[in-house]
Formats: sequence, C-alpha cells, structure tokens
Amino acid sequence: MKIFHQPKELQEYALNCKRSGKRIALVPTMGFLHAGHASLIDIARERGDEVIVSIFVNPTQFAPTEDLDKYPRDFENDCKLCEAHGATAVFAPQPEDMYASDRSIWVDETVLSKVLCGKSRPIHFRGVLTVVSKLFNLTLPDVAVFGKKDAQQAIIIKRMVRDLDFPVEIVLGDLIRDTDNVAMSSRNRYLTEDERVRARSISQSVFAAEAKLKSEGVKAVSEVIDDAVKRISNAGGVVDYVEVRDADNLEEPTSNSKELLFAVAAVFGTTRLIDNCFVKL
Amino acid sequence: MKIFHQPKELQEYALNCKRSGKRIALVPTMGFLHAGHASLIDIARERGDEVIVSIFVNPTQFAPTEDLDKYPRDFENDCKLCEAHGATAVFAPQPEDMYASDRSIWVDETVLSKVLCGKSRPIHFRGVLTVVSKLFNLTLPDVAVFGKKDAQQAIIIKRMVRDLDFPVEIVLGDLIRDTDNVAMSSRNRYLTEDERVRARSISQSVFAAEAKLKSEGVKAVSEVIDDAVKRISNAGGVVDYVEVRDADNLEEPTSNSKELLFAVAAVFGTTRLIDNCFVKL
Repeated sequence: MKIFHQPKELQEYALNCKRSGKRIALVPTMGFLHAGHASLIDIARERGDEVIVSIFVNPTQFAPTEDLDKYPRDFENDCKLCEAHGATAVFAPQPEDMYASDRSIWVDETVLSKVLCGKSRPIHFRGVLTVVSKLFNLTLPDVAVFGKKDAQQAIIIKRMVRDLDFPVEIVLGDLIRDTDNVAMSSRNRYLTEDERVRARSISQSVFAAEAKLKSEGVKAVSEVIDDAVKRISNAGGVVDYVEVRDADNLEEPTSNSKELLFAVAAVFGTTRLIDNCFVKL
Repeated sequence: MKIFHQPKELQEYALNCKRSGKRIALVPTMGFLHAGHASLIDIARERGDEVIVSIFVNPTQFAPTEDLDKYPRDFENDCKLCEAHGATAVFAPQPEDMYASDRSIWVDETVLSKVLCGKSRPIHFRGVLTVVSKLFNLTLPDVAVFGKKDAQQAIIIKRMVRDLDFPVEIVLGDLIRDTDNVAMSSRNRYLTEDERVRARSISQSVFAAEAKLKSEGVKAVSEVIDDAVKRISNAGGVVDYVEVRDADNLEEPTSNSKELLFAVAAVFGTTRLIDNCFVKL
C-alpha cells in the first residue's frame, strides 16, 4: 500500500492509473477509522482496481468554536485498517499542503445546506464540498464511497456531482452501529461512560421512528419527532434538531415523497452526535 | 470532427480518450468565433491529441440586464472554423441540458472577482467558474486554452485550478486585434460604424499605457489612467473602469510588483468593450 502526503504526487499517480485504464475508487475520511469506515473501504474494494483512502481532518469544515484541535487522530492504526481492507493507497496531506494561505475559491451549495446540520453549522458544507472537489480532482475517482451516517452530506455531495458534472459515481455505505446500537463515529471517543449509555436514546429514537414511518408514512411525522425529542431530553441530551425530510430534496415531506430521511443531532456532555434512518415509502 | 450536444455523451467520449492515454486540449468559447478564438484552437492543436472546442453562451454569467438574448450566434460558421483549425470535437449543449432547474451548486471566488469587471458584473465570475468547472469535468482536459483578452477571467481561472486542484494546465493565448487595432470580440458586431471608429480610442489608450508603463513602471500608473480616461471620454465613450493592477493578485501595484495589468472597460453606444495589456517589469 502506497502512502502519499503531497497532493501533486498523488495526482500524478492517479493520472497514471487513469491513463492506463484502471478504475479508481475513493473513500474520503477524516481518519481515526472504525468499522464504519472499514465497510466503505470494502465497498470501494469491490468497485475499483485502485482503492484510495484519504485521511484529512479538513479545517475549512470546522467553525472556530468546533472540535478541530481535539479531533482524534491515529495515523498508524488507520494505515493498518486501510491495508487490511485492501486499500492500495492512503492520502494523508497536511493542511498547509492542501490550502494556499491566499486561497479564495469555494464550492458552495445554496439550498440543501441551509437545513438540518447546515443550520447550526453554517460554513460546514461549503468546507466539505470544497475539500471533496479537491479530493476528486486529486484522485480522479470513478467511484467515491460515502457513509449514510452523514446523510445530509451524502445528499449534498450527490447534488454537487450532478450540478458540476463530476465523472464520479457516488455509492453510499450503510450506517454502522456498535454493539450498543450507538452509531459508529470517531467522535464517540469524547463520550464519558455515562454519556455513552445515555446516548443510546438517540438510536432508540431512530429505531422507533423507522418502524412508525414505515407503517404509517408521512402522517406519523410530528409524532415521531415528539417521541424522539422526549426520549433524548429524558436521557439528558440537548436536542439540536429532530426532523423528517424528503430524502430527495430535503424539503418538508409531502404525500408525494418517495423516501423519508429521519435525522437527529443532539449533544451529550460536550459531544454533538448525529444519527438517522432512510425510510422508503 | 465530432459534434456533441449532450453533456454525458461528450463526457463518455472524453473518458475513453483519457483512459486510452490521449492528451485532451479544451478551448471554451461562447461561439461566434473569430480570429482570436482561432488562435486559441491553434495553440490547443499543438498541445493535445484531442482538441475539444466548447460553444456555449452560458446564461449564468449574464445578469438579467445584460446581452444574453442578443448575444450573436452562428453555429455553422463556428464549426467550419473549428474544423479548419484542427479541432477534433465541438461541444454545443443547450442550457437546459447543462443546468437542472433546481441546481444549487456554485463555484465562487471571493477576492480577485471583486475588482475590475467583477465590480460592475457581480455575478459574472461565479457563473464563469461554475460553467468552466462543468466543462473541465465533462471534457477532462490536460490543457485548457483561454484568451488574455479576458485578463481577469484568465487570472481567476488559474486561481480556481490552483485552489481546487484541477489536473489542468491553463495556457493563455495573446489578445488578437483587428486591422484597426480594436480588440477582437464577438460583441464588436453590436457597434455602429461610427462607434467602431471611436472605439479605437480604447486600444490607443492601451498602447500608450503599455509604452509608458514599460519605460517608467509603477510610478506612471496615475498618469496612464488619466490619459486613458481622457482619450476614451473625448471619443464619446463612457468609462466603466481604467485600472492598473498587479497581474499576480489583482491588488494595487507596488514597487514589488513583477508584472502589471493595465485594463479598460468602456461603453460605446450600448456596447461594453474591454481591452488590456500585461507589462512585465
């Protein structure tokens, strides 16, 4: 497995792969990899001759008040996991090699990014789309694999690929849960033992909502939201949002909606956690 | 020479070229091609195995008050010119095939686009960068050729390529003048015979500024600006701007500047014309 730190060296490598007809699959990550990431690499392995995993804690998607500085890192272990799952290259750049000090170009989304996480993290998706554009241009993937855990991110990236015509197929991997059903996240390491137990209320609210929405559809929306807010608040969590949206356009669901996204963000202690489910109608 | 109207068909073609190791050169245009465009295609012909000329009057770079509807078009003649200069493919999409009605992604520039033409055309460069990103993703060029006539555009596109890591070399073709020294432009066709004669004041001011800046450098800046404003006003033109900028960052020039951009925009009748020169110090 090759390890690249310099963007232009990786790009040269990817260009050579491309020119020789190889299919490239990309898995963009912020590192501190867990079973959720591993499942994305497994998907990439099936889709590409080359499997590139990027490991980059992207500063432009963090607000100054957020956890950029304490975001967990473990490069050695990440590389072991990548290699074990068949990655052929890891790309781990330094921020100063990714961003010129006088950078002035942004890729921005003006509709889908204004709701859910975008409401409390107004610069987040601009940072995500800008870095994902850069990663696409550096790795030239035929396929890029993202997790459904970041549901809004996945939907916005699909929109970007459509609107900017990136020649990339976006494949989504399922949200992966730990044995206590808490959604896998690198940020779970911030939780105390007590917070972790109480955070189960999030996945419990997701399971309840999933069942209810499956059987009753759009008319259950306000009920499942109320139920989730109650469960999480009763467990001592501070709800950022609990919402049900049309999974295609993130608008309020209607009787025409074909798929719903139930999405939650809540804070336990100082840790903001997200969880969700997609429900086909 | 192949002609594509559908974005995805062109992209498939470009991907196959890329995978078989061919070098692709792109010349993005808005059509109604003249000798200036021809010179860009000639450069592309030297640089690429495949030479793709895009012909697309991009609606998102025109404000509602601008000349989108009357912008001149002559597809048949354009194709003849492209073929005569060795283009291997023309890409001429319809706006509705380039832009989804619910499009929501923009590529934006936040510094260089705020001066010169960007001041009087605030949405222009966002439209340009968005469509050029799309064209890059659809044609996968190794080289893209732009004209120095649109000096600010060229500088901003170079910035985009740098900041988003597009694997594209940007090559700039010289500004080409007609026999009366008016800069070639598809918009010249809007000029009456009388306006055309008076519009010579623009290139005359460029030549005067070029000579003065070459011999006297930054200290001649205010003098060449005054001189140009006088020449153009005396000829009945309405000056939008006459400015001298550092050609690297479009900031006010300093004693450290290595190259200057002298740039003019002025309106004759109802036609806005631009002209410029680069002066190495």
